[in-house]
Amino acid sequence: MSQMSKEDALSLPRHRHACHVMLYADTDSKLFGRYQTKHIVLMQMRFDGLLGFPGGLVDLSKETLESGLSRELEEELGVALLVSPEDHVSSSLAPAVPNLITHFYAKKMNESEIKEVEKAAVTVAKDHGLEVLGMVRVPLYFFKRGGGLPAFLSNSFIGSARSQLLSALQSFGLVSQQELAKATQQANQMRHQSQPR
Amino acid sequence: MSQMSKEDALSLPRHRHACHVMLYADTDSKLFGRYQTKHIVLMQMRFDGLLGFPGGLVDLSKETLESGLSRELEEELGVALLVSPEDHVSSSLAPAVPNLITHFYAKKMNESEIKEVEKAAVTVAKDHGLEVLGMVRVPLYFFKRGGGLPAFLSNSFIGSARSQLLSALQSFGLVSQQELAKATQQANQMRHQSQPR
Repeated sequence: MSQMSKEDALSLPRHRHACHVMLYADTDSKLFGRYQTKHIVLMQMRFDGLLGFPGGLVDLSKETLESGLSRELEEELGVALLVSPEDHVSSSLAPAVPNLITHFYAKKMNESEIKEVEKAAVTVAKDHGLEVLGMVRVPLYFFKRGGGLPAFLSNSFIGSARSQLLSALQSFGLVSQQELAKATQQANQMRHQSQPR
Repeated sequence: MSQMSKEDALSLPRHRHACHVMLYADTDSKLFGRYQTKHIVLMQMRFDGLLGFPGGLVDLSKETLESGLSRELEEELGVALLVSPEDHVSSSLAPAVPNLITHFYAKKMNESEIKEVEKAAVTVAKDHGLEVLGMVRVPLYFFKRGGGLPAFLSNSFIGSARSQLLSALQSFGLVSQQELAKATQQANQMRHQSQPR
């Protein structure tokens, strides 16, 4: 992933721009009544069978990065979420698509707002069942045999989504650097050991 | 996967029993306004970061397979869906867990019922955000570079879920045998080529 400043990214000629956002919140809820889940992080199953963050292509001749992202969120989540320039996390060249810059944002909400997003996404969002096959929360904990974050990371992700998730989990202090290293190592093992049947 | 009749499975001493169901429907909706999606098939992202079907362990001293499954669905989906013995598809020994029999069911609904399930799952289901991280629809179509069913099948699944999905898609005529062979081959390639970053 080749990172650059947002300003440098915007000054590149003949590039397309995509914006995505990680919506997250703190929570006190307990899995099986015992295990603190601590944080909620939203991703989605995309039409193409890959996991990714909500968002999409922005047309800079008509909108800003942030207003374009809000428009995409309205379509995918059914809620006109405002994303501000302060929510910007990183800009980078897409790993596999020529001349595409991906801008990544993170927006902290509270738990009830996250639940409203999940509800709107399956009731009023235009893209539900089509471009978006479902919203999922990211497990940030560890169970036996790689259950939790490692197993989640062994799934298939679009473009930069997996590395954007990992760096955001670290920089916002949602998972420690040591736990992330363990999770990615276990995920790589699971990915290569388990032949899909 | 070692299949057996439901009767033989129930007669085995000292085995635990788990029941899961594939909820599905026909649809006329079009992806990007152009591509017929034809069918909706529901799966879920589980607490452990793996994809699976709704359901769980049944206690045969207290309930039948079908009433136990309905109880699990009430917890996970927020809807008391009745599953009948006629919806039974297969019974088999779990591949990795000793003394566990998994019973698989499939229940055809209509599109509006599926949407009610998706709504209840994020609003009233007890397990939402905990045992169940989100409901997802399975893409049954093919886009360029493996997008759609192949990419979906390259994700990580619990136990028999992936093989149950594949045989149900074939036996209910939702995807042709030829397309399924292509999808599994592409999925295996994607799984082994793409090192998670």
